Amino acid sequence: MSAVERKLDNIKATIVSEVPNNISVSEVTYEGPELVVYTRDPKKFASDGDLIRRLASKLRKRITVRPDPEVLAPPSEARERIMNVIPEEAGVSDLDFHADTGEVVIEAQKPGMVIGRHGSTLREITQKVGWTPEVVRTPPIESSTVSNVRNFLKQERDERRDILERIGRQIHREELSDDEWVRITTLGCCREVGRAAFILNTPETRVLIDCGDKPGAEGEVPYLQVPEALGAGASNIDAVVLTHAHLDHSALVPLLFKYGYDGPIYCTEPTRDLMGLLTLDYLDVAAKEGRAPPYESAQVREAIKHSIPIEYGDVTDIAPDLKLTFHNAGHILGSAVTHFHVGDGLYNVAFSGDIHYDDTRLFNGAVNDFPRVETLVMESTYGGRNDYQTDQADSERKLKEIIRETTTEGGKVLIPAFAVGRSQEIMLVLEEAMREGEIPTVPVHLDGMIWEATAIHTTYPEYLRDDLRDRIFHDDENPFLADQFNHIDGGEDERQDVADGGPCIIISTSGMVEGGPIMSWLNHVGGEADSRLVFVGYQAQGTLGRRIQNGWDEIPMNDRANGRGTLQLNMDVETVDGFSGHADRQGLMNFVRTMNPRPEKVLCVHGDESSVQDLSSALYHEFNMRTFAPKNLETFRFK
Amino acid sequence: MSAVERKLDNIKATIVSEVPNNISVSEVTYEGPELVVYTRDPKKFASDGDLIRRLASKLRKRITVRPDPEVLAPPSEARERIMNVIPEEAGVSDLDFHADTGEVVIEAQKPGMVIGRHGSTLREITQKVGWTPEVVRTPPIESSTVSNVRNFLKQERDERRDILERIGRQIHREELSDDEWVRITTLGCCREVGRAAFILNTPETRVLIDCGDKPGAEGEVPYLQVPEALGAGASNIDAVVLTHAHLDHSALVPLLFKYGYDGPIYCTEPTRDLMGLLTLDYLDVAAKEGRAPPYESAQVREAIKHSIPIEYGDVTDIAPDLKLTFHNAGHILGSAVTHFHVGDGLYNVAFSGDIHYDDTRLFNGAVNDFPRVETLVMESTYGGRNDYQTDQADSERKLKEIIRETTTEGGKVLIPAFAVGRSQEIMLVLEEAMREGEIPTVPVHLDGMIWEATAIHTTYPEYLRDDLRDRIFHDDENPFLADQFNHIDGGEDERQDVADGGPCIIISTSGMVEGGPIMSWLNHVGGEADSRLVFVGYQAQGTLGRRIQNGWDEIPMNDRANGRGTLQLNMDVETVDGFSGHADRQGLMNFVRTMNPRPEKVLCVHGDESSVQDLSSALYHEFNMRTFAPKNLETFRFK
Ligand SMILES: [Zn+2]
Ligand SMILES: [Zn+2]
Ligand SMILES: [Zn+2]
Ligand SMILES: [Zn+2]
Ligand SMILES: [Zn+2]
Repeated sequence: MSAVERKLDNIKATIVSEVPNNISVSEVTYEGPELVVYTRDPKKFASDGDLIRRLASKLRKRITVRPDPEVLAPPSEARERIMNVIPEEAGVSDLDFHADTGEVVIEAQKPGMVIGRHGSTLREITQKVGWTPEVVRTPPIESSTVSNVRNFLKQERDERRDILERIGRQIHREELSDDEWVRITTLGCCREVGRAAFILNTPETRVLIDCGDKPGAEGEVPYLQVPEALGAGASNIDAVVLTHAHLDHSALVPLLFKYGYDGPIYCTEPTRDLMGLLTLDYLDVAAKEGRAPPYESAQVREAIKHSIPIEYGDVTDIAPDLKLTFHNAGHILGSAVTHFHVGDGLYNVAFSGDIHYDDTRLFNGAVNDFPRVETLVMESTYGGRNDYQTDQADSERKLKEIIRETTTEGGKVLIPAFAVGRSQEIMLVLEEAMREGEIPTVPVHLDGMIWEATAIHTTYPEYLRDDLRDRIFHDDENPFLADQFNHIDGGEDERQDVADGGPCIIISTSGMVEGGPIMSWLNHVGGEADSRLVFVGYQAQGTLGRRIQNGWDEIPMNDRANGRGTLQLNMDVETVDGFSGHADRQGLMNFVRTMNPRPEKVLCVHGDESSVQDLSSALYHEFNMRTFAPKNLETFRFK
Repeated sequence: MSAVERKLDNIKATIVSEVPNNISVSEVTYEGPELVVYTRDPKKFASDGDLIRRLASKLRKRITVRPDPEVLAPPSEARERIMNVIPEEAGVSDLDFHADTGEVVIEAQKPGMVIGRHGSTLREITQKVGWTPEVVRTPPIESSTVSNVRNFLKQERDERRDILERIGRQIHREELSDDEWVRITTLGCCREVGRAAFILNTPETRVLIDCGDKPGAEGEVPYLQVPEALGAGASNIDAVVLTHAHLDHSALVPLLFKYGYDGPIYCTEPTRDLMGLLTLDYLDVAAKEGRAPPYESAQVREAIKHSIPIEYGDVTDIAPDLKLTFHNAGHILGSAVTHFHVGDGLYNVAFSGDIHYDDTRLFNGAVNDFPRVETLVMESTYGGRNDYQTDQADSERKLKEIIRETTTEGGKVLIPAFAVGRSQEIMLVLEEAMREGEIPTVPVHLDGMIWEATAIHTTYPEYLRDDLRDRIFHDDENPFLADQFNHIDGGEDERQDVADGGPCIIISTSGMVEGGPIMSWLNHVGGEADSRLVFVGYQAQGTLGRRIQNGWDEIPMNDRANGRGTLQLNMDVETVDGFSGHADRQGLMNFVRTMNPRPEKVLCVHGDESSVQDLSSALYHEFNMRTFAPKNLETFRFK
């Protein structure tokens, strides 16, 4: 009998001794980080509202109880009884029965009403039908990404169960080493922005945190080939943890599966979906630019299949000596400050990922409150001594001013923007300004992946700022459903119509004017002297966006859609800073200043050389902590 | 055709085009770092004294020319002709013909006379008989270690040729990576003394520098299991480089062969022999103390079989992107400051190994002059701010004083000492003092491995201090052959005789009174109130030597040879510092102060925590260089 079997047997014995005699325990298995208990008496189990919590706290594990398949009500009968229990206002849109696990997935517009107070409605469902309900939200705006991911996971359910069981056994394996140490190896993202990738290593466990590309430098991928990473074989990586879906953190996660990795990807649920959206787009862009993509869509599907969603605040065992907790990072949807607790009180490391310290319209500011943390690995994008951003209120005023002027004069406002994050932030500004009458209510056209990204945001309102979440929960207040927002889904014809029409606002990808529908919009309205082009995000060196910012007004057009030749840009070009998803220098300093507890050591990463050096030096002088500006390929030992 | 074959073909073509038409080139192969050229015209090859040098400089390789076996004179005939060429005073003691390689190994008391001016005698031999002569010294004192090693290598000659050819192909393999970086990982010996082990790593190559144990802490071995070391498989280590034979640097080198390592061990020739002596003794001691040794003598033989001796100053290719050069370290016989040149001018790292900065009687001071060096990894044993040693001249005065007093009063002087280094240093002091009449000429008895270690020293006079080397070359001046030195080889009977006799000096292992014949000597003379026990080396915490130093005079005797019970120590106990093989604080500072060029970065290792911190801080403040006191298991990137 293996050590894992023995451990499971012990756990089963404990459970049997804890539950009342009249409740049977037929099987106990692992499913990823969770313990699953099968019972022939699911109704009795559910009737004791506190039993599961007592077991979980006794075993220090997350526990799911499932009915033995034999005791389930038939789906047709169960469906009717479930619908009787759930209030009509919950807006149930789908019920999906899985006989193998005894689960019924309930998709509803208002999941909270399916759950009930402290889970009372869920328990009632189990008591009535035996099935274990699992609730997901019906996206308020239909998202093909979300429905594709959900359908795919449904279809791969059997394989996924095997994967989860295997991962569960890995997580709960016996510890082998008496040694105690904690190390971090930097594989990318040091003294540069891009190719985020770190190894957290103990004598037991090796975890890869992020695995991104470097925009504008396709050859510079993380140093995955060194033995500390995959050089010793992909199976030596126990887990991958993804802080957020931006490509500089996620682009090469699917590549790991091409290299033979077969373990879990821990991330939030929105990060999983956005990773799917962004990596598939990444493959698309590579194909369009004639580059050989490093992997195929099959590997994106593998990554999704191996994803284990973790919610903010849930402490999750991911290895015998490692607990993972995600916290809101305020940067993009699902972005997480990632906290690792090593051993039994041995050490604590937090990776900031990318953070925004102050609240924005979309997100609460980054969490910096932890039970313990000795070392912080911290982004430094705007860590330079002069990297202070315009206050967002000022920026919004300026943007509204421009819109007022332009639309009053009959012109159009064209805003290149990233699909994820910045676009939704601008949408929120516009919706409020129009609602309050600060700017005229004109159509706001959304092109490229912006609509899809917005749909994903509305699928996960729990990940948005408190007040925004509450508004989305009420359809009539959901700002993203405001009438003036129009999804451009009619292609060139629709764009031509818009161009021929009156004053309006157009938000379109790509954000740095490097291809995408923005090229077409420039073609349509670039010649109009009374229209304006407004940059709301950072334009990197070498991009067309940067060149236009710098005064270029003859734009080479040589893609298929828009033909060859030169476009004379007659629009006024404006830049409105202050909508960044990243904390500025002050935000980064404040993040550490108010951090609780204050870490002993900070590694400054994810910034160009002067930014990390400046931030490292400022933190050292202001807070008297040990700070470092690592290079790639270094290893730091903490314990 | 493989890349290596292609390269060899190109080299052969170059050689053919360089040598005169009347000289044939039948084959070109690698033998370790050397290129071997077989010719049917060895005599013509040898007649052009400059041809080999021209080829070597053209190809930037070390070149050996060997005759095609078919053109060799028969051994019996060749032997006679060779003996006619070599002057009688050379003292040839053995000729050994190897038809497979066309080599004849000539063992002589004076190898220089076999070589001749600029190799003229060697060339003459080849011209006369076709055979390629290789010269080794007849040990002036017979050493069983040296003759065992030589006989073993002779017997394993065929396998060794295969090994060397394989290693040669590895060294000259094609470079695969376009990346350029240089890293060092610390596997031991950081903030501690013992278990020296470092990895030097480039995109092409991984080299292990030293692999020692930690005396007094048998469990604490280097972190070999991490993927940067052997975790990714022993075959991922390209080469092992050994700075010197002390067990804290060499003890676990044989273990590598148990782990599947099959590559070269680069070290000086004396280090190879001393490693053999000391690791076999290490196994002996472990067995006597009832500990399971981590490997067997078979692995010691493997280590010797895979050793590639390198002389001080020879620049040797050990990988496509790595050149190794050893320099005298002044610490023990064969000890080397180890210099690595990475890539074609990319980076230079020197490992000090253990060093002595000033000249001692045995050795010239450590070399600190290099073509280039950016990073120095430096020992810090006496790096603490108060670690100043007594001047050796003062120490010698004190030692002679003690000897004078004791012997004049009819007593005996008992000196526990390490077999390698300290014993020979003391022998030189005594020999001079007796020769100059400063102390009475009394018998000096050498017990334990001291005689054997002395024999090894005299086998390699080139590794000793200039003037000592010259004296050894003349038998009548060889200080180690002075009449008063007596090798205790008659066991307990002889010891009893000595104990019953008159005034004398006894130098015996172990140096810290942890077993060995010193225990027997304590038994014999420990009760004599007119005799003295004199410590001349550091006594570590927890050793019996340290306890005696601290005043213990009741010595538990419980080994088999000396029976159980307690010995009453009546001897006076004295300590004479200043014979250390390690540079003191001032020597370490001077090593860096006069280093040419001054390195940019220094990693302070091989010292307890306060020593490395003190030295690191002192170097930083005095020389304004970047200094570090690494922990074990860290990785530093330099380029
Ligand atoms: Zn980001
Ligand atoms: Zn980022
Ligand atoms: Zn032979
Ligand atoms: Zn040493
Ligand atoms: Zn040492």
